[in-house]
Amino acid sequence: MNGADVLIQTLADNGLEACFANPGTSEMQFVSALDREPRMRSVLCLFEGVATGAADGYGRMAGKPAVTLLHLGPGYANGGANLHNARKAGTPVVNVIGDHATYHRQYDAPLNSDIATWAKANSNWIASAETADQVGDLASQAIAASYGPPGGCASLILPADSAWSEASRKGPVVEVPRRATPAASAIAATAAKLKAAKSPVVLIGGSACTEAGLRAAGRLKAAGIRILTDTFVARLARGEGRCAPDKMLYFGERALKDLEGSDLMVLVETAMPVSFFAYPDMPSVLVPEGCALEALSDKSQDGIATLNLLADALGAPQDVALTAYAPQDCPSGELTAYTIGTSIARHMPSQAVISDDAVTAGLPIYSQTAQARAHEWLMLTGGAIGQGIPLAIGAAVACPDRKVLSLNGDGAAMYTVQGLWTIARENLDVTVVVFANHAYRILNIELARTGAGKPGPAAKKLLDLGSPRIDWMGLASSLGLPSVRCDTAESFDAAMARAMGQKGPQFIEAALL
Amino acid sequence: MNGADVLIQTLADNGLEACFANPGTSEMQFVSALDREPRMRSVLCLFEGVATGAADGYGRMAGKPAVTLLHLGPGYANGGANLHNARKAGTPVVNVIGDHATYHRQYDAPLNSDIATWAKANSNWIASAETADQVGDLASQAIAASYGPPGGCASLILPADSAWSEASRKGPVVEVPRRATPAASAIAATAAKLKAAKSPVVLIGGSACTEAGLRAAGRLKAAGIRILTDTFVARLARGEGRCAPDKMLYFGERALKDLEGSDLMVLVETAMPVSFFAYPDMPSVLVPEGCALEALSDKSQDGIATLNLLADALGAPQDVALTAYAPQDCPSGELTAYTIGTSIARHMPSQAVISDDAVTAGLPIYSQTAQARAHEWLMLTGGAIGQGIPLAIGAAVACPDRKVLSLNGDGAAMYTVQGLWTIARENLDVTVVVFANHAYRILNIELARTGAGKPGPAAKKLLDLGSPRIDWMGLASSLGLPSVRCDTAESFDAAMARAMGQKGPQFIEAALL
Repeated sequence: MNGADVLIQTLADNGLEACFANPGTSEMQFVSALDREPRMRSVLCLFEGVATGAADGYGRMAGKPAVTLLHLGPGYANGGANLHNARKAGTPVVNVIGDHATYHRQYDAPLNSDIATWAKANSNWIASAETADQVGDLASQAIAASYGPPGGCASLILPADSAWSEASRKGPVVEVPRRATPAASAIAATAAKLKAAKSPVVLIGGSACTEAGLRAAGRLKAAGIRILTDTFVARLARGEGRCAPDKMLYFGERALKDLEGSDLMVLVETAMPVSFFAYPDMPSVLVPEGCALEALSDKSQDGIATLNLLADALGAPQDVALTAYAPQDCPSGELTAYTIGTSIARHMPSQAVISDDAVTAGLPIYSQTAQARAHEWLMLTGGAIGQGIPLAIGAAVACPDRKVLSLNGDGAAMYTVQGLWTIARENLDVTVVVFANHAYRILNIELARTGAGKPGPAAKKLLDLGSPRIDWMGLASSLGLPSVRCDTAESFDAAMARAMGQKGPQFIEAALL
Repeated sequence: MNGADVLIQTLADNGLEACFANPGTSEMQFVSALDREPRMRSVLCLFEGVATGAADGYGRMAGKPAVTLLHLGPGYANGGANLHNARKAGTPVVNVIGDHATYHRQYDAPLNSDIATWAKANSNWIASAETADQVGDLASQAIAASYGPPGGCASLILPADSAWSEASRKGPVVEVPRRATPAASAIAATAAKLKAAKSPVVLIGGSACTEAGLRAAGRLKAAGIRILTDTFVARLARGEGRCAPDKMLYFGERALKDLEGSDLMVLVETAMPVSFFAYPDMPSVLVPEGCALEALSDKSQDGIATLNLLADALGAPQDVALTAYAPQDCPSGELTAYTIGTSIARHMPSQAVISDDAVTAGLPIYSQTAQARAHEWLMLTGGAIGQGIPLAIGAAVACPDRKVLSLNGDGAAMYTVQGLWTIARENLDVTVVVFANHAYRILNIELARTGAGKPGPAAKKLLDLGSPRIDWMGLASSLGLPSVRCDTAESFDAAMARAMGQKGPQFIEAALL
């Protein structure tokens, strides 16, 4: 049993069973050991950003970490942006980063770099297994660290000689940590403040946005308290049979207008709301003047239990209002994000999972699907576009019986377009939609907001994707996906009906221009 | 004049005139300022790894830095792997990394991360412009730092408020540093050792591999001394009219066999040769037993001058043997890397630039083009695949009058496939070849070498790209490139003749299976 065997067995003993991999020479022992551990499924990704985004999607849906297998410092860097998103989502991820043999590092061979420094900004735990005998225990520590709370990215550096040398023992099975709740006195004090407030709002994030969390929040709503979710949450339960709070609006000035008159904001499993970006002469903090802020529980704590304790303290009812399914007619005419949202609402099956990297197309679809069948909405928690395709891969591996719908702006989809191939290769039940408006549309909006003035020719050229126009249908076909292009509301509706009515990979280019 | 204006003007005053960009909201002021500075050409890349690889290619050919424009920590991470290659190449690059407004950082908005830590492993200089007034001086410092010596990546973090606030002054024009040569006594001592040695070898890297460096090395060769170049060099002058040394072989055991009997190795503008990877029971250091090592000049020093001083000290002749052009017949039959090399040698025009990310196909092409017309060969200095397409973009922007040929393994090309679009958009004179063997062929070789045994089904699946097969011609077409697929030696030869005979973007899928 070598170090690589010990690593994979320790991971599998701890219930980890998915590895999103882009290996190189230094990881060949790990690759070979996969043949000897049938509990671990390995999924090849043609770029590390696909592997890490898939691990994020898997972790959000499975509630336990996936493993990534990355090739030294550059492999880690390639996966860094989607690990940033995973960190902001609080997703548990265990990164295995191959390295040169320990004795080889000193020679600074071409692929040598300071891996621990690469991993530092994004990891809640980093260690290097300097001997094969350390591998097992460090693997267990990495798993434990990935759970947090809050969850995050643990990075285990695996030198080649620690992988190929004989190892004496596996690491232990670790307990998944329980998350704390606020003290009874804090709950009572917050309940009293909520009672006394004229127009209170409770802002929720993290697990408080799952079905159970929203049901608990729904009790507070039934007691007359406004509930808002964070603008971007890792996983939001929506649609039929779920409680449906509003969410914090994206643009700060609109969010503040929406909150006008609120005199108390209670935070449950989240932090003080702030603007996504700063703009000249606009506030960063999205708490209106005169509104008291009460940080009841942070991202490491159990928001579901916190909300229920708060509801109990307020004597809130157990019965809560649940969203009813609302049928919609087939849209017609021009294809827009609104008609697309309607078609998705019409055809998306119960328990579907949406991976949202749709940027400007996202909000209309979000609003149109409020009364669709029950589904989960996975959002761009870290703002690093290129998440939508990889996240869908991971969600589909975690939940093979659920339909996954990946919604992507064309600019965003290009970042990790390699993921289309993995969807085809693994025959995943994923329908990918790309909104082809041939522009970084959001940046045309943002340019004005930052006070940068009207774009001239040079600036315009940096916001435009239209020359040449990307043939998305052809691109997806070249990577092995059955593909279709739709340029009317009717044709999109028909394509969505077909895609939702069968299992397996599908690609739809929504031609918005 | 705001901070963004000051930045771009300072860059332009210093002769920097190319910016490879993938901007976001925090960089909108920079984007807008591009409209006011016609000396700076901006090139949109649809993924940051394309932008950074292009900057590397530009820097290698122009001898001065290009600018990258990157979107916060995740944007930097996306560009990290090709910056690793640039660092190992010693290429000057100035990264401009946008950040949140200084006062906004404390709120840890979604895109917030520790940018300086991200950039640390790869940068020889990092600073953040905390006020608009600092921007000009810091830009000048970044440019100076990028030149080294040795050259490298300087990272200037630009908070949004430092970009949008008024700034009082630009930064100065900096002097490009002169590189040192060894002391006369060290030259004399080394010359004496070379004279005394039975079978000496001089290993050269960096600028010693340019045309002027090789001519100086040729003088030593004429004096009976063996010359070897590093296995991977940033830019190697080859073909007609150039001196043609051997290069260090890639696999360590072959390199050592090749060096058998050498009793002195002198290093000029390079470091001690080491194996690319470590393998069980194989040596890391590629200096044979009994061979003395003399580190005459390191990567920061002027290798061209060093070689000429050494040649003078040895009384070596000025006249050196130069490679003659050797015509080759049209290859026929099965398409292989050898026939491809022959066709490239037949049709590549004088002064062509080859961007080599061809992995297993690279060496046969390298050997077949030894007596082609004069060309420059740009190699994978840092081992992070995904360099071949971006590097070609940068080389073509730096040298619009030279034909650029981008050679890519299919696994490597997928990493930064987004670059094909930029080649089309900018109408660059680049011919891209992808070697479609539908496998990570090199890893099938490496797996055995690491002692990992025969691959079973799980391992094989991680080395195979064949299911589904990527339709490379279709993929390139979808991104706007005129494309062709060739599956015989004759058809490839004809396609290469066509591509070399006209200006503008071309794509050739070399169907090797």
